Amino acid sequence: MSSTFGQCLKMTTFGESHGPAVGVILEGVTPGIPLDVSEIQVEVDRRRPNQSEVSTHRDEPDTVEILSGIFEGKTTGTPLMFMVRNKDAKSSAYEQVKNIYRPGHADWGYAMKYGTRDYRGGGRSSGRETLARVAAGAVAKKLLAMRGVTIQAYVIRGAGIDAVERHFEEIEKNAVRCPDAQVAEAIIAAIRTAQSERDSVGGIVECVISGMPPGIGEPIYDKLDADLAKAIISIGATKGIEFGDGFAAADLRGSENNDTRDATGFLSNHAGGILGGISTGQDIVFRVAFKPTPSIAKEQQTLDVQGHPTICSVTGRHDPAIFPRAVPVVEAMAALVIEDHFKRHAALID
Amino acid sequence: MSSTFGQCLKMTTFGESHGPAVGVILEGVTPGIPLDVSEIQVEVDRRRPNQSEVSTHRDEPDTVEILSGIFEGKTTGTPLMFMVRNKDAKSSAYEQVKNIYRPGHADWGYAMKYGTRDYRGGGRSSGRETLARVAAGAVAKKLLAMRGVTIQAYVIRGAGIDAVERHFEEIEKNAVRCPDAQVAEAIIAAIRTAQSERDSVGGIVECVISGMPPGIGEPIYDKLDADLAKAIISIGATKGIEFGDGFAAADLRGSENNDTRDATGFLSNHAGGILGGISTGQDIVFRVAFKPTPSIAKEQQTLDVQGHPTICSVTGRHDPAIFPRAVPVVEAMAALVIEDHFKRHAALID
Amino acid sequence: MSSTFGQCLKMTTFGESHGPAVGVILEGVTPGIPLDVSEIQVEVDRRRPNQSEVSTHRDEPDTVEILSGIFEGKTTGTPLMFMVRNKDAKSSAYEQVKNIYRPGHADWGYAMKYGTRDYRGGGRSSGRETLARVAAGAVAKKLLAMRGVTIQAYVIRGAGIDAVERHFEEIEKNAVRCPDAQVAEAIIAAIRTAQSERDSVGGIVECVISGMPPGIGEPIYDKLDADLAKAIISIGATKGIEFGDGFAAADLRGSENNDTRDATGFLSNHAGGILGGISTGQDIVFRVAFKPTPSIAKEQQTLDVQGHPTICSVTGRHDPAIFPRAVPVVEAMAALVIEDHFKRHAALID
Amino acid sequence: MSSTFGQCLKMTTFGESHGPAVGVILEGVTPGIPLDVSEIQVEVDRRRPNQSEVSTHRDEPDTVEILSGIFEGKTTGTPLMFMVRNKDAKSSAYEQVKNIYRPGHADWGYAMKYGTRDYRGGGRSSGRETLARVAAGAVAKKLLAMRGVTIQAYVIRGAGIDAVERHFEEIEKNAVRCPDAQVAEAIIAAIRTAQSERDSVGGIVECVISGMPPGIGEPIYDKLDADLAKAIISIGATKGIEFGDGFAAADLRGSENNDTRDATGFLSNHAGGILGGISTGQDIVFRVAFKPTPSIAKEQQTLDVQGHPTICSVTGRHDPAIFPRAVPVVEAMAALVIEDHFKRHAALID
Repeated sequence: MSSTFGQCLKMTTFGESHGPAVGVILEGVTPGIPLDVSEIQVEVDRRRPNQSEVSTHRDEPDTVEILSGIFEGKTTGTPLMFMVRNKDAKSSAYEQVKNIYRPGHADWGYAMKYGTRDYRGGGRSSGRETLARVAAGAVAKKLLAMRGVTIQAYVIRGAGIDAVERHFEEIEKNAVRCPDAQVAEAIIAAIRTAQSERDSVGGIVECVISGMPPGIGEPIYDKLDADLAKAIISIGATKGIEFGDGFAAADLRGSENNDTRDATGFLSNHAGGILGGISTGQDIVFRVAFKPTPSIAKEQQTLDVQGHPTICSVTGRHDPAIFPRAVPVVEAMAALVIEDHFKRHAALID
Repeated sequence: MSSTFGQCLKMTTFGESHGPAVGVILEGVTPGIPLDVSEIQVEVDRRRPNQSEVSTHRDEPDTVEILSGIFEGKTTGTPLMFMVRNKDAKSSAYEQVKNIYRPGHADWGYAMKYGTRDYRGGGRSSGRETLARVAAGAVAKKLLAMRGVTIQAYVIRGAGIDAVERHFEEIEKNAVRCPDAQVAEAIIAAIRTAQSERDSVGGIVECVISGMPPGIGEPIYDKLDADLAKAIISIGATKGIEFGDGFAAADLRGSENNDTRDATGFLSNHAGGILGGISTGQDIVFRVAFKPTPSIAKEQQTLDVQGHPTICSVTGRHDPAIFPRAVPVVEAMAALVIEDHFKRHAALID
Repeated sequence: MSSTFGQCLKMTTFGESHGPAVGVILEGVTPGIPLDVSEIQVEVDRRRPNQSEVSTHRDEPDTVEILSGIFEGKTTGTPLMFMVRNKDAKSSAYEQVKNIYRPGHADWGYAMKYGTRDYRGGGRSSGRETLARVAAGAVAKKLLAMRGVTIQAYVIRGAGIDAVERHFEEIEKNAVRCPDAQVAEAIIAAIRTAQSERDSVGGIVECVISGMPPGIGEPIYDKLDADLAKAIISIGATKGIEFGDGFAAADLRGSENNDTRDATGFLSNHAGGILGGISTGQDIVFRVAFKPTPSIAKEQQTLDVQGHPTICSVTGRHDPAIFPRAVPVVEAMAALVIEDHFKRHAALID
Repeated sequence: MSSTFGQCLKMTTFGESHGPAVGVILEGVTPGIPLDVSEIQVEVDRRRPNQSEVSTHRDEPDTVEILSGIFEGKTTGTPLMFMVRNKDAKSSAYEQVKNIYRPGHADWGYAMKYGTRDYRGGGRSSGRETLARVAAGAVAKKLLAMRGVTIQAYVIRGAGIDAVERHFEEIEKNAVRCPDAQVAEAIIAAIRTAQSERDSVGGIVECVISGMPPGIGEPIYDKLDADLAKAIISIGATKGIEFGDGFAAADLRGSENNDTRDATGFLSNHAGGILGGISTGQDIVFRVAFKPTPSIAKEQQTLDVQGHPTICSVTGRHDPAIFPRAVPVVEAMAALVIEDHFKRHAALID
């Protein structure tokens, strides 16, 4: 189990879905930065459950408490600690799956690895742990904003339906965080259909990081894209990540894929803002595939903990699609990586 | 600059494309393992340049020397050190690009980051650094083989042409390491055409890891897939990675994507052998997108180091396609990650 | 600021002396170990303030809460989180030193480093952070006990008075944790005298680790003694550490200092149980020097935050001697290092 | 086995006493710094064997080769690699101890830990590995000099004889690196006497770091003194370290030990330049105890590898005292820690 992430900016998280609390210690934050709990709360609220017709009905206020690292309204340079108490943990709802390995879930792996598993909502493997990432990411986003760097993620495909237009102002206006209002409606409709059929859907999230200077990234193993890949694939339900043209670049010729430049700057951005593991100064662009929620009411074959075949139908409170609520998590992880790399670059050239 | 990779099994590499040598220190190898330099050499030879009609003509013998960590034919538990002297470094060939930022290359980023760049073949950003990865990976592959785990990578798409059949015995028989002999010929032909047109092509490599027990992986930040993603995206020219069904999983319903089980075992492997960041005991399967070689003879617009527009045509010795020689590199990185995670698991449960 | 310690067993702590709470996340604990909060509480109680006539009168119940990592009474392999709310934080008591750099304290360094300081009891630099170390160390001690390894620290010198006898059963019976009951009284008397003279005293703590097998330690940089040295010197108020004969060994000849062996085992333990950074199987023995408490009521010259000379007299609630309460902290840090190294050894030989 | 040291400035070393070579990869060095191999050689020469009447007669030229990280005479920001080939490795001399655990040596621990040991001069446990530390430290010393920070170590006690005067210009003029020329002669005489009696002696090295600004150090676990303690105790044959007044501080009262200040600055330096783990801006002062060389010709009881009692007399080429040649090693390790901490501080405040 590793619950620590980052080098110069380092977060360590704790908490299970149905334990007493989830939280995070964030080390390495620049001292002297004004920081109010409301700045954390606003990001945490973006991933809060039960906010729309297509999210789980688990009702958590997710009220953030700051227990360390702030004095007189400013960061002190000592570790920040943010925590949220779990309020709506109904372990009883999980009695049904107590002795069953749910298909598509971490249950089996946890049991094999740890010799035990916390069946209450997946314990530590639950998506609820992402709350801590978002709380830490809120600080990273603020530090980056002070550098002129902004991060925006959004849904570009859900249930097989592609966004056509990208109006960033639409993103937070619809339940699936899609920058195309019309397509958002179609995706929402598809999610509802799947849900009515006791099923779930997947989708793709894109993330754009603007305002980057060139020169950030630590080749050859801590390339900026390598660290982003790790950060993003560490989020539950992700199945792939691609940068710039991504898999499509494999079909291009060098003359098509290379980003040429004239005096006005780069003439294209096939690379997605990173070359050789270092930012080029263009927008960093990546896309993430999210699988459909594995918890579905539809009956599926599986094994119980004694190894006997059985039928699994998960009827608890689950998101019928993970990708809309994953959007702030993607932003948070990207922010933590980028801010960490700014600090690492500062160390190198000092 | 970070040239260290891994936790319990840790490699640190050095060397530039046209410097005196490239090499690696590998720490944490189990003591008492018989190891001969020939076992390293055979893997290093797989990525050696100038082996086929579709690789660079730089002629390097790549003779591996072991300078530490072996006594009386066995590992001692102290750091292994492998090194190869560069023999065919012709820096003069790079005079042409000395003052130019080559499109699609790390030149610009290195200059912006480090305030300088080694123009001789890209210096540290060259693919030549992967020799050190392959040497270290050869040890990891051996250690894994002793655990019953094998790793095989191969090309499944090149120049837009898909492999249809997968005969593993074909892989090392053709110049593009494709398990489909007929498709291999087509891809080779396409590479030659591109080359004749002073251009290059990209492709996709797939990797299968067999013999894995369930329970390997360190959630929530060092998930097995997260660490593989970082390892693979740290290889030059990669643009994406996906596990199991990958991006296609985003279009599936939960009932389609979940891998169900009966008494005989898993009935499918959409997940690609990892759930919740932990191995399930099924084959681990991932795919990697490689962009076309950025170094092409075709003329392209770029800037010189004074910022003036200029034309770039790279006429040195370059692979017209990176993906065939990347196959052993992908295996090496996967092996290093997997072996590291076995050791981390041993530490956890001790 | 680094608040993370350890490799395979890793703790990350947070909290200021007069903030809302102090606590710790402990990662890497073996899953399946029965663990009750009372086992943590008993160690935390050993360092609790206001327990004797020679400790501070700050009255903290120090009630430990477990917020993560336990399910059905056993460790799950996921991060443990322990926390204590601060109850008796009287920031007003520190108004007197708000604008003064206290001699012998971290005030000046924190101000210079972070551009700010938390004047309330030293903030993060307070000895109160050691509560988190002790809570984490309680788990490490339990894990070690399961391996047959026990750790015992005690005072061998205080206020310049040496313990003559070492009766371990006496240690917890007197206020200064000295294994010599008579000397304990003399030290207590000396502390009271110093206190009555508005002054403080220092002392030396010895630590013995029994039951160690040979072979634990990770040369050449993470030697067992090197990691113990770091762990111990990271405790506030320490000024030195020595192993086995320590500084006295510098005056010996090789023939005197080498520990010879016959068929019955080692004939002496000048080395203190570690050679070449690896345990020999003998008792590990080290000693730690603690300076006198810097907070004294006696008037001393110092500077205020504007750089003007002023007089400092610290009249708050302070321990007149740090070393008695440091005993469980020394044990905790030693336990964390030793257990971490057992796990690292398991990874190596796996 | 851990052969990596440091965070932002990181060295990884390799090589055995009688293997083909010893060397180091140094990562994180500021790019653009002029660096010539002669600057490394001069420091390596300071610890070279066979330089005086009181050092081993092993005759090694120790010629440093740079294999990576320099381009056009300047650091590139990529990893530096320095290497020295072993020339005078006479493994035959060790046949006598092949089957014996030498008293006071790492032999036993290595055998128990790794299941094997390299009996040729101790293999990796030999003091020869310190060559790599000194090579890396030469770079750190240069980087620090550019910051105005200088590091000087010297012998203050040998064979029980204390230096009285401290004339830094004397240090490199005598074979024991003592700043008191007369005492140096006495120590040399004592070493010769011990040697003639087939024995060895120990000593104490002091180190002063001047020019430090306040504010360097990363509490609470990576305090500057904690990291120095680890670095120094990782050097073979060390038995203790103390800062400022060290163990003597345990006998002082707070009013004696606190360093007061007036407008002219600090009025004393009992603390040794570090408070709360952060530099105060005063000289950093620490002392290190070195045990007598364990390899002595005098006959001692020990066990052979079958566990049978036997007599050991080590008649190879050994230093009769380790501390004089340890002086540049102490400086190197201190330099690596301090430069690393400067870089870490830069990351924090960026």
